[in-house]
This record gives sequence, structure tokens and C-alpha cells, in this order.
Amino acid sequence: MPVRLERSGYGKSGIRIVKVARDGDRHDIKDLTVAIQFGGEFLRVHTEGDNSTVLPTDTMKNTVYAIARRYSWDQAEEFAVILADHFFADNPHVGTIRIDIEEHRWDRLTIGGKPHRTAFSRAGREIRTAHVFRSADGQRTVEGGVADLVIIKTAQSGFEGYMRDRYTTLRETRDRLFATSMTARWRYSGKGLDYGVSWEAVRKLLLEAFAEHESRSVQHTLYAMAESVIENVADVDEITLTLPNRHHLLVDLKPFGLENDNEIFVVTEEPFGLIEATVRRAE
Amino acid sequence: MPVRLERSGYGKSGIRIVKVARDGDRHDIKDLTVAIQFGGEFLRVHTEGDNSTVLPTDTMKNTVYAIARRYSWDQAEEFAVILADHFFADNPHVGTIRIDIEEHRWDRLTIGGKPHRTAFSRAGREIRTAHVFRSADGQRTVEGGVADLVIIKTAQSGFEGYMRDRYTTLRETRDRLFATSMTARWRYSGKGLDYGVSWEAVRKLLLEAFAEHESRSVQHTLYAMAESVIENVADVDEITLTLPNRHHLLVDLKPFGLENDNEIFVVTEEPFGLIEATVRRAE
Amino acid sequence: MPVRLERSGYGKSGIRIVKVARDGDRHDIKDLTVAIQFGGEFLRVHTEGDNSTVLPTDTMKNTVYAIARRYSWDQAEEFAVILADHFFADNPHVGTIRIDIEEHRWDRLTIGGKPHRTAFSRAGREIRTAHVFRSADGQRTVEGGVADLVIIKTAQSGFEGYMRDRYTTLRETRDRLFATSMTARWRYSGKGLDYGVSWEAVRKLLLEAFAEHESRSVQHTLYAMAESVIENVADVDEITLTLPNRHHLLVDLKPFGLENDNEIFVVTEEPFGLIEATVRRAE
Amino acid sequence: MPVRLERSGYGKSGIRIVKVARDGDRHDIKDLTVAIQFGGEFLRVHTEGDNSTVLPTDTMKNTVYAIARRYSWDQAEEFAVILADHFFADNPHVGTIRIDIEEHRWDRLTIGGKPHRTAFSRAGREIRTAHVFRSADGQRTVEGGVADLVIIKTAQSGFEGYMRDRYTTLRETRDRLFATSMTARWRYSGKGLDYGVSWEAVRKLLLEAFAEHESRSVQHTLYAMAESVIENVADVDEITLTLPNRHHLLVDLKPFGLENDNEIFVVTEEPFGLIEATVRRAE
Repeated sequence: MPVRLERSGYGKSGIRIVKVARDGDRHDIKDLTVAIQFGGEFLRVHTEGDNSTVLPTDTMKNTVYAIARRYSWDQAEEFAVILADHFFADNPHVGTIRIDIEEHRWDRLTIGGKPHRTAFSRAGREIRTAHVFRSADGQRTVEGGVADLVIIKTAQSGFEGYMRDRYTTLRETRDRLFATSMTARWRYSGKGLDYGVSWEAVRKLLLEAFAEHESRSVQHTLYAMAESVIENVADVDEITLTLPNRHHLLVDLKPFGLENDNEIFVVTEEPFGLIEATVRRAE
Repeated sequence: MPVRLERSGYGKSGIRIVKVARDGDRHDIKDLTVAIQFGGEFLRVHTEGDNSTVLPTDTMKNTVYAIARRYSWDQAEEFAVILADHFFADNPHVGTIRIDIEEHRWDRLTIGGKPHRTAFSRAGREIRTAHVFRSADGQRTVEGGVADLVIIKTAQSGFEGYMRDRYTTLRETRDRLFATSMTARWRYSGKGLDYGVSWEAVRKLLLEAFAEHESRSVQHTLYAMAESVIENVADVDEITLTLPNRHHLLVDLKPFGLENDNEIFVVTEEPFGLIEATVRRAE
Repeated sequence: MPVRLERSGYGKSGIRIVKVARDGDRHDIKDLTVAIQFGGEFLRVHTEGDNSTVLPTDTMKNTVYAIARRYSWDQAEEFAVILADHFFADNPHVGTIRIDIEEHRWDRLTIGGKPHRTAFSRAGREIRTAHVFRSADGQRTVEGGVADLVIIKTAQSGFEGYMRDRYTTLRETRDRLFATSMTARWRYSGKGLDYGVSWEAVRKLLLEAFAEHESRSVQHTLYAMAESVIENVADVDEITLTLPNRHHLLVDLKPFGLENDNEIFVVTEEPFGLIEATVRRAE
Repeated sequence: MPVRLERSGYGKSGIRIVKVARDGDRHDIKDLTVAIQFGGEFLRVHTEGDNSTVLPTDTMKNTVYAIARRYSWDQAEEFAVILADHFFADNPHVGTIRIDIEEHRWDRLTIGGKPHRTAFSRAGREIRTAHVFRSADGQRTVEGGVADLVIIKTAQSGFEGYMRDRYTTLRETRDRLFATSMTARWRYSGKGLDYGVSWEAVRKLLLEAFAEHESRSVQHTLYAMAESVIENVADVDEITLTLPNRHHLLVDLKPFGLENDNEIFVVTEEPFGLIEATVRRAE
């Protein structure tokens, strides 16, 4: 037969779980969406319909709920490690296991000037992410991340001196709005970390670099943000940033006899620039 | 001809505008999506294709940008009033004008412990809304609102004593999670209000009532929230709340030999309960 | 207490149901999303937390599944009538009941040149809708509709002779693209109709009028579409059309030394014109 | 400095273009969304803010419109090849160029029993995709694909004989619904192909295999679909299929005294199984 199975995988995505931790009458919430993906050959599954090596994805879902209850864990990265270890112990025939978690964060409501014990509001659009990868050859990586963190800077951003060709009409500017919906993902090199503390530290460094940078381009600022993380967080050895450029175009008000001195902008969803880079700690 | 034009309207939706206010080197952002809708008969427009009474929706869009620059305004409700007045002055043949604004709020980033002058992050999923309605008979209403404010309470919520029929399988509970994505819209009766202050006051009252209420049902808490606004904000005379019930179902862990004492929940998007009510100041 | 409950309602939305009808080895699919909404005062429910008159929305969901199995029905309108009648029989204290159904249609796959007995693909983006409203005073309306039917005409469309003011920059045109995502909803006056046949007839008339009309504006074509339905379908006495104008803007290629004779367009999602009208059979 | 730029890229996404081809009074539509991504090192861009090697993404957008007009092309794959060649000719310092196109297909409306010359409706939810990749070392690949093609089979599908562990509760079945939203992507090995003909051939083979297969699992059917393409289309040498399992769960009607013999199902969006594989022509 002239056909070869090159790569295959299967799993369960979109497993929604909320865990309420109760410390007396003070509650805490973990709100996660979990995805599990097994990789491997699974040749007879595909060619013969032989399911004897297939753990049903319905079982994966059940496992998430049972493991969440059975084990003690606090951070999404820890939960992902426990899940990956559990699945590998019972499925040694699997080549790789990937656990991807999206955490939807909640802020405690402030009522009467004090944090409320049991009421919360969703904290922003941003999603905290955690990723664990294990393979049969012993490799294990733990990554943290953030997705859809929407930020803007209204000063210290320009774009000049770029290449021009016959189709270039863009005007140079020393003062533009720079808005993006940041997705970042970084790899932890250390062990036994407090992932909550590390995550907050990385997020803070990214925002500081974004706010303070004298930006000559999205690429320029992206690099400064990534560099700041690598230089300041010893336990992170690689970070990938994806920065869509959410263009804010200055509206031409001249036809109406009005100046527009960087005051009125139209926001466009499409098209959008898309800038990505991976920065790594040098050996 | 046996056909009658019963009602008609037209306008422009999805007009995206960002205004950057500059106070020295300290900036502020207003980020709005504006919709304009004219109502009236427009009979010959429809039947004859006579466009002589049609202000193009493209002109409406231009007007939003020009008016934003030409006039001084701070709150979205004020901007909507200016727009409605402008359009009515030039289009007296129109029966009604509705301006609906969604405001996407930004929080100032905290950098080095201090609020940054020119960098911001999007504040949550919630949208602040403003609505102005004017009609040829002189009526004018100004409404404020909030949409998609996602909140949860993990205590003080039950659902018991309801009707049962042959298709009822739900179990009574004195302790459930109560989560919703609140949409609220309220009518201002006063004039010359500080809409920013009023909006914050209403939002605060809604969240307080939500957090503190001993809830016997979504309806019960909805009413307490609405009542608190009417009783405490003299300038609001009517409020409508829409509370989808984002069900958090307790996962049955017995098949796995585990207790689940209100700890592990699965969140479902569909189906969802939908509870609505309008509460008004009595004469 | 100075507060009055003005209006209230509750129900269940997003009830997903697929029914497979089997005629020997030939199958048919009905794929519906059902929403149920009860209206009324429900005063003590809101003010006292007295649930004794509240049929749980969970029961509404169960009822949809049980009724779908227990009764014989073919069209979504029939199913909605059965549901409304069932709920009214058991809940005479309710003021109004509204059933809204979205039908996701499937096309039978053609395999080897013949329609397959048991395999289907989703038919387009468009949704067929059905709406039944019943009130305690005996009123009952049945409506059909279509949502999100995306259509375009590349000829026979212009926009000229419109109002101008100081903010008008739009150019008149006799030849533009006219694209929309049509939502229509019509009321049936007859009884004992074959709703499937009527729905197809209305949809066909709407598309014919859209394709053939010499359009002077969206309003002009909207009216022609509505008029055609009222004039040709005796069992429909009112129709509401909502036509967002999905603007296709001619790209200016002059900076690159190129003509653009109505050939290359950019599609924009925002902002968009929004045109609505209700047309009724005259007495 | 201990930091290294590992990988970087930039480009423009979401470039919307509609081309109307006019053959007398008969029109045709191409409706595309184009994304362009340059890969390479761009070291000084990131570290120094030196933009002298950066072609603005705004220029990329302009280029799409100008090239669409200047060159003759019919299929999206051809357009992508022209774009990639154009950009490489002018930007030899770039390492890789990727062009990804989504095509939104339109069906000609049938009016009065005949295909209309100038009116169309959007054809389904499915998206046709085209992908061209070029690198500085001379590599060039052309891929076609389809995304979001929603299909269901109501017979010839079971799932039995799978692994079980302590968390398995799923019941075996010989008769289930099998629904998916197929994404496929295949690589063309030939040159000078008629991509329109090839695309239709692959799509037809995928649907035939899906409809006719005696499915023991999603994996089993996925492989049969991929195998059919490789065996029957000489110009395709690799295909990747991604099949989310859109679970249709049999509703338990026993509490209401009703049988449910594979007739009434509830559709769930979350969680969902996710099955992927790449199948390649063996050497």
C-alpha cells in the first residue's frame, strides 16, 4: 500500500472546570479550560479500527474532574503536571502527552471598601495559560503564558526609515498609537517553582517594558519586552511573543475644515499587522 | 396596492472612534463604538427610490468624527446628546433618532507602583453603554448601562420550593454557585448630571446587592439589585436587568469513589436560563 | 416602598436538539436550537423569593426533549405550537409564552451522483427561524423567518440624489456592489399551513426580488422584496426585513498607475449601514 | 548580552479582497482573505530599531490589491504563487515567505429556474484555503485545503473495544451519530495543475469516504478519508486531517417513561474530541 501514517494524535479539548476552594467562609475560585492531546503512531487504530490502545476522550474528561478532586494543587501548571504524569503512567504506549490549560481569572469584588469573601468578577479579557509537554523519551517542559492581553501606548512610539517600493504609500511618523492584543508564552527552566509568583513577575516585566520603551517599531518593542523577561527572570530561558498591530488610523478631518492633531482615531480590526519572535537565553 | 409601509429606519452601526485627550504629557483615552438610527416613514424612499430625504450613512460616520473633534465632551452620554441634537437640527423630517454607544474602558497601567501617563490595558470584558433617544414630539431620554459584566457568587444562593411537573428532575439546593453575565440599562430622570459619577454609583450598587443578597432565585436577586438602584439613586427612575444563568453543575464523582462537597463544577454555555425584569420608581 | 415591578420574564435559551427520523435505511435530520420565555408579573417570586409559581428552566429543557419524542411533528413551527400549548395548559398563571426556534439545515450529501441515505453537510450559514407567541388573552401568532442569509448583487445597484450636508463626502454611483446578510421575519395569518412549503416560497420570492430589482438604495430594494412577499403569499400578512449594508469599497489604485473599473474591492465589517422596515398587508 | 533572537517574522493578516470578473453581463466573484508572513532574522530591526530592511505591512496590503489587478489569475493558489514570487524578487534578504488565503465561496442564485448572471449567495460555512511557502533555499510548496466543513453521518458508525481504566464510564455503541467540522490541508506535488479541478476532486473523495465508511472510530474514518485522497489523486502527496468530534449525546428519556431508540440527541460544543493525522504517499 503506497500510503504511510506520518503523524497522529487525539485527545479532548474544551474541558471546563471550576474548583471552589473553601477556607472557612472565604472562598477562592480556579476556573480552567483544559485540553489533552496524546501523540503517537496508533497505526492499527487508524488502519484496522482496532481500539484496544485507545483511551476514550470521554475518560480523559472524567479524569480531569477526578484528579482535580483527588490531588492537592494550586496553580494550573501543577495541575497540568499531575495530569500528564497520571496519563503517562497508565498509557506507556503513547509517544507524547500535551496538556494545555486556559485560566479565566476572577477578581474578588470590593464591597463596602473590603474584599468580599465569596463574590467575584471576571478579570479582564486576558487569559493565563499553562502548557505541559511530556514525551516517552523523558523530555518534560513546563510553559506559562498569557493570551489576549489588550494594551495601548499613546506616546513614545514611531515608525520611520522603512523600505519603500512602488506600492508604498504609508507616511512616516514619530508619534502614533501602538495597540496590541499580546500573546506570550515562556518556558520555565527551573524546578519546584512557585508558578503563580513567576507568572506575575513575567507579566509585570512585559507591561513595564511595553509602557516605557521608546518604540521605533513593533519589532523593536517586542524585543525589549522579551529581553527584559530573559534578563530578569532566571527561571525562564525562552519566550515567544505574538503582537498583532491593532491599527489606530488618524482620521482626516481636513474636508470638514478641522485640524486633527493626533486626537481622533478610527480603530480597524482588519487588516492587521502580525509580529512574532522567539527570544532565548544564550548559552 | 394592498401593501403598507408600517415602520422603517436606517442608520450606521459599528462606528469605531478613539479620542486621546492630552493634558500635558498625561493622556486619557475614550474608546467608543457608535450606532445611529433614524426612524420615520421615508415612504418615497422605499417605494420610488427617491433619495432626496436620505442623509447617507457614510455622512453619519463622518459626522461622528467631526463632531467628536469640534465639540467639547467628556462622557459618552454627553456625546450622544450632542449627536442627536445635531442630526435633528439638520433633519427635521426624521421622526426619531437613536444613538447607542458602547464604551470600551481602559485602565491606566501601574508601572513601578505608579499610574503610567500614557500606557493602558483594556478593563475587563464589560462594556459601558449609553443611549439617547429623541423624537419629533420633543421626547428625549438618556440611558446608561453595562453589558457583559461577568460575576459569580459562591455562597448565599439556593433554589428551593419550585413547581414540579412530570418532566421535573432538578434537585433542590440551598448552596449553589450563581454566575451571570449581567446586562443592565437604566433611565436618567435628572438633567445636568455627571454621568460618569452616576454610572459608577449604579454599578457599585448592583455589585453590592449581588454580593450580599441571600438569594432564593435569580429573580429574587435581580429584584434586590434593581430595587437598590431605584432606592439609592434619585436620578434613575427605571432599570432593566437581564441575567443569563451561567449554570455551574456539580460533577458526580461517585463512580470514581470520590465525594464532591460543592468543590468541583462543570460550566456549561448551553442551555442557559435567562431572567429579565424592569423595575420602575412608583409615582 | 417606592419601587414597582414593571415587567418580568424568564425561560431557557440555547436548548440544542437533533432529531433523527428513520424511514427504513433513509434518515432525515432536524437540528434545532430552542428558546422558551415565560412573561408575567411573578411578583412574589421577585420580592419574597417565593418559588411556588416557578417552573424551573431545567424542566423546560427536559420538556423540549420529551415533547419532541412524544408528539409527531415535522416543521419547527408545529413543534413550537405544541410546546406553547403544553406549557400554557400546565401554567395558566403565566401571562405570555414565547417559543423561538433556530433551525440549522442540513443538505443530503451527493455520493456517486445520488443523494446519500445517511450522510449530510450543513447547508450554508443561514438559519431558518420559527416563532410562536401565546398570551393569556387568547392571542396566538406564528412567524417564520430566516437569519444571516448572505447575498450579493454585482449589477443593477446605484445610490444617487441623496441629501448632502457639510460632512458629506460620499460620491454618487450608478454601479456598486450591494451585499447584505439578510434577516427576515414574517407573520402567518392562515391556519393549517404547510410551513415548509410556505417558508420555501417566501425565501424564493425574497431572493428573486433581490436579484432582479433595479436598486436605487437598500431601502428601495428592501421594499420591493417585502412587497413581493405580501403580494404573492396570501398566508403572510406582515414581514420585517433587516438588511445590514456590507460595504464593498472600490480600491483606489491610481497611486500605482492602475485603473480600477469596478473590479477590485475591499470588504469592511465596520462600520455598516443598517436598514430596517416592516411592511404589512393593507386592510 | 545573554539574549539571542531565535526566530522572528512579521506580516499582514486579514487583507480582505473581492474581485469581480465581468464576462459581458455575466459576472463572477472571488472573495479572499489574504495573510502574508515574512520570516527571517531581522536582527537589527529588533535590537536597534533599524527599519531599513522592513517592508511595511501597509505596503503588503497595497501590493495585494495592485497585484490582483495587474496580473491575470483565476485560482487562489495561483494568486498566492504570484504574490510570493513578487515579494521574494524585491526582498531577497527575507528567509521565508508564507502566503495563506481563505476563500469565501459564492453560489450563483437560481432565479426562475436559471442561474442568475449577477446575484449570488454565500456557499456554506466552509472555507477553501490555499497556502504557498517559499524559502531562500529555493523550496516552494503549494497546498490546498478546506476548513470548517460541517458534516454528519447517522449510520455506519460505532465505537467499541477501547481501553478502560478506573475513570471510564463511556458505554460501547455500534450505532452513534458521527459529526465533525472538518479541516483538511493537502500538499500538491505536481506543477501546472488546475487547482480548481484538483480541489473539487479532493473534496469529493473526502466526502465519499466519510459517507460510505464503516466507522469503528473517528481515527479509523479519518484514515480512510486520507488514504482515498492519496490513492486517487496523483498530484497530492500528503494530507493532514483535523476532525473535532462534535458529540451528539443520546438523551435519557426513561425518567419520563419514554424510549429513545437513537432518535433524540443533545448536541454539545464543549468538551469535544479532537483527532488529527497526517498521511503521506510512501516512497
